[in-house]
Amino acid sequence: MKKMRVLSILVKNNAGTLTRVAGLFARRGYNIDTLTVSATKDHRFSKITLTAELDDIMLGQLMSQTAKLQEVVSIEELFDHNSVLREILLVKVAVTHECRSKLIEIANVYKGVVVDLSRESMIIELTGKPQKIDAFINVIDNFNIVNFCRTGVTAVQRG
Amino acid sequence: MKKMRVLSILVKNNAGTLTRVAGLFARRGYNIDTLTVSATKDHRFSKITLTAELDDIMLGQLMSQTAKLQEVVSIEELFDHNSVLREILLVKVAVTHECRSKLIEIANVYKGVVVDLSRESMIIELTGKPQKIDAFINVIDNFNIVNFCRTGVTAVQRG
Repeated sequence: MKKMRVLSILVKNNAGTLTRVAGLFARRGYNIDTLTVSATKDHRFSKITLTAELDDIMLGQLMSQTAKLQEVVSIEELFDHNSVLREILLVKVAVTHECRSKLIEIANVYKGVVVDLSRESMIIELTGKPQKIDAFINVIDNFNIVNFCRTGVTAVQRG
Repeated sequence: MKKMRVLSILVKNNAGTLTRVAGLFARRGYNIDTLTVSATKDHRFSKITLTAELDDIMLGQLMSQTAKLQEVVSIEELFDHNSVLREILLVKVAVTHECRSKLIEIANVYKGVVVDLSRESMIIELTGKPQKIDAFINVIDNFNIVNFCRTGVTAVQRG
């Protein structure tokens, strides 16, 4: 059964590494849902965190093939119960005088922060698990969302 | 003069799109510093936000060549003064009984949140502009950082 997987891949920090990792998914026709690449403590390496809908067989194949790439140092699957998974949402909503306070109320419940406010629009920043971000977007869906941007998941193992 | 650029690219949501965009950078030997890919309001499209050190000539070439890719809907450069730029850091630090409270004090100043705490380690979550994240990592550098993970920048234009 396909489900959302979170993969954490430590790679050598070269131009071209991302192309090879993403290419491995693309050649098999697997769509990457979110992907983040960023620095690590050691400047020679970067961390790629990606999420994709995969079943057990697809996951096993991808993990062993990714691990074989020359640029890949390690790959592991992360789980909600043993890792802290976080994502940021920035959402811009067109607001009128009437609906502004309703939106701020909802944002407060989700511990969102208003980071920009003009006469016609508002930008809310929300940090949390992907499920929390999804729920918030769902709740404000009847407001006039201009656009939103999510970072995709980043993760660190607990304990 | 090379400086950090933030590019926001709206792309068609196909397997292979990311490979082609990242490949364009790789073929020219330009290293992508951070990259995030995530969903947008419209399921047919994804938003790629990336940062790279580029001078004006490299930037101009990359933007025009990226815009020509079939999968690319639009590309724009974002600036600190007209956009909200945000990133999350998750940092895991090995702590002793003595240094734990010192670390929590620093995290509080930066409005960081302790999201996991065990006898030997602590995970701090910090959201903010890339410069704020850099400053925090710099301040806690003399603690025993086990590892950290950043999402890379996501951005929405103001107003």
